Amino acid sequence: MNGRAATRVNRSGATIAVDVMSGDRGVAEILPSIPWFLRRHPETRLLLVGDQERIRGLLGAQCDDARLEICHSTEVIAMDEPPAHALRGKPNASLRVAVDLVKEKRADACVSAGNTGALMAIAWYVLRMLPGVSRPAICAEMPGLRQSTHILDLGANLDPSPEQLLQFAIMGSELVSAVENKPAPRVALLNVGTEETKGNKRIKRSTELLKASSLNYVGYAEGEHFFSGDFDVIVCDGFSGNVALKSSEGAARLILGLARDTFGKSLYGRLAAAFARPVLRQMKQVIDPANYNGATLLGLRGIVVKSHGNAGSLSFGRALEEALMEVEKNVPGRILSRVDTGASGRGKTEEHVD
Amino acid sequence: MNGRAATRVNRSGATIAVDVMSGDRGVAEILPSIPWFLRRHPETRLLLVGDQERIRGLLGAQCDDARLEICHSTEVIAMDEPPAHALRGKPNASLRVAVDLVKEKRADACVSAGNTGALMAIAWYVLRMLPGVSRPAICAEMPGLRQSTHILDLGANLDPSPEQLLQFAIMGSELVSAVENKPAPRVALLNVGTEETKGNKRIKRSTELLKASSLNYVGYAEGEHFFSGDFDVIVCDGFSGNVALKSSEGAARLILGLARDTFGKSLYGRLAAAFARPVLRQMKQVIDPANYNGATLLGLRGIVVKSHGNAGSLSFGRALEEALMEVEKNVPGRILSRVDTGASGRGKTEEHVD
Repeated sequence: MNGRAATRVNRSGATIAVDVMSGDRGVAEILPSIPWFLRRHPETRLLLVGDQERIRGLLGAQCDDARLEICHSTEVIAMDEPPAHALRGKPNASLRVAVDLVKEKRADACVSAGNTGALMAIAWYVLRMLPGVSRPAICAEMPGLRQSTHILDLGANLDPSPEQLLQFAIMGSELVSAVENKPAPRVALLNVGTEETKGNKRIKRSTELLKASSLNYVGYAEGEHFFSGDFDVIVCDGFSGNVALKSSEGAARLILGLARDTFGKSLYGRLAAAFARPVLRQMKQVIDPANYNGATLLGLRGIVVKSHGNAGSLSFGRALEEALMEVEKNVPGRILSRVDTGASGRGKTEEHVD
Repeated sequence: MNGRAATRVNRSGATIAVDVMSGDRGVAEILPSIPWFLRRHPETRLLLVGDQERIRGLLGAQCDDARLEICHSTEVIAMDEPPAHALRGKPNASLRVAVDLVKEKRADACVSAGNTGALMAIAWYVLRMLPGVSRPAICAEMPGLRQSTHILDLGANLDPSPEQLLQFAIMGSELVSAVENKPAPRVALLNVGTEETKGNKRIKRSTELLKASSLNYVGYAEGEHFFSGDFDVIVCDGFSGNVALKSSEGAARLILGLARDTFGKSLYGRLAAAFARPVLRQMKQVIDPANYNGATLLGLRGIVVKSHGNAGSLSFGRALEEALMEVEKNVPGRILSRVDTGASGRGKTEEHVD
């Protein structure tokens, strides 16, 4: 494909295919993000994939917006449906159609809040990998006090090889370089300690490959660095990445749940909470998960963004913005050129899809 | 050893060897926990391993307590010293002497805030494994709203086999059963999802072994369950366990750091914080890491507890209490009998140390 990855359908603005049917909370939660997004991005077109009647019922007159088009689809992939089943058995599901629209170049990117495994499998099958990349990786941004950090992989590859971890590093570095205008993002490898002696064989081989690459590789990171802002990109296997992401969410939920319980228990507590509310609102701006919604599937011949399954509408809008940003910055094209020119220090890898 | 694992030195009370020299913050931070602990546990004796003069200088007249004995040692294993180096080159280091005292049955347990890798290597070499257990696992308790959860392994075994994960499950289950008086702790296996189809080969084989065991195995847990209180024990490989623990700490630190910054920024914020302080203090009771200090190294022929490296004194005292509890409940003896009687469904494993 040689750089056509992110060719825009409509040069005057991007087109994004939106699977409005999938996710834990359904179409009624996703649709309010549509007018919000269109107001903020007047040049962008959206292809809404879903039940035409429901969409029209919920959006009303807003459906007449020339920047909106509905691709009718009533079939939905369930959140717990096995990916292989979804791939083979549901050619007309909203998630599948949204990905197909990218393949057919009717859209520059697609966004879904659906089943991650199914989205991965379908995107991989339909769009195929960029040459030089073995498998897609899930990348998301974590908040930090000073700056955020992009982490990959968050669950697509449970046992990646050192060569794949290097590919993740290249992809993560290109993404951050593109969307944050950083010329040489600081890339770290997740380990159980920062000392040279730490880690298993995979880690030791991966750090050698990363050191030999042209990336700005700065060494090992630990779990706490997910939220420290010390690195721009942290690369890890999908098992520990997924577990770390979810355990962090669990820790945050515990603190907030405990705060709610403790402040709610007494009249004094409820007064203190009311008094603190304006300050808490400021805090929420920084760490609200909604502001960090939108994990991207990197390494594909196209842009695929996964919204959190239970994203509220503003949060889903943030995932749409992630997709738009990646279109505007031509992320797949940048990854392609970096993998092609051999940031790995050994040129293209063995795998060529086309 | 056949059940002698936790034979008490002094039947009228336990004796604990305390490495007072190791850790990020040194002897002056650790020693204040000693009188605190002795007040709370009048039957327990402590063998303080460290620089006699410094200990006497810091503890003063409290050294005359008949329940205290000092084992002089000035050598210290550095926090970043390679474990192999510490094991071979420092036979008189405080950490080493504390473990030796357990081997010599002069102490029922030892506690150190030192280098985890060195403590693991030395404890393993000196005390050896219980028959039926291949390697030690690091186990710690995580707070939850309703109840806490014990997680293992947290970094001793980066690539455990399914058989080892089963051993972890047995050990964790016995620990919780002993210290929390729960007859059948709910044991879960950490995975990237709770559906049957999720996970890699290791996970799939491990879940088979766990299902075939006599444990109360309840299926897969995800990272968020570290803090949900839904399970009593979560078993995982040491790489993802370590990363998840540290990333959760990182997330908690981000929230608290942000709260400090945001509340400190304005006069209103500082007033709101002062107003909220009594409620925050109640919250801290539940999730203060100091209350959860004291990870235990399970599977050894003796009780070894690791305190957090930068534990303050009360926090170190909590690690001493963890050790005492394990002595009183004879945790190694219980693990031995469970592994011996074949909770794994196949009797003893191949490895016998003695």
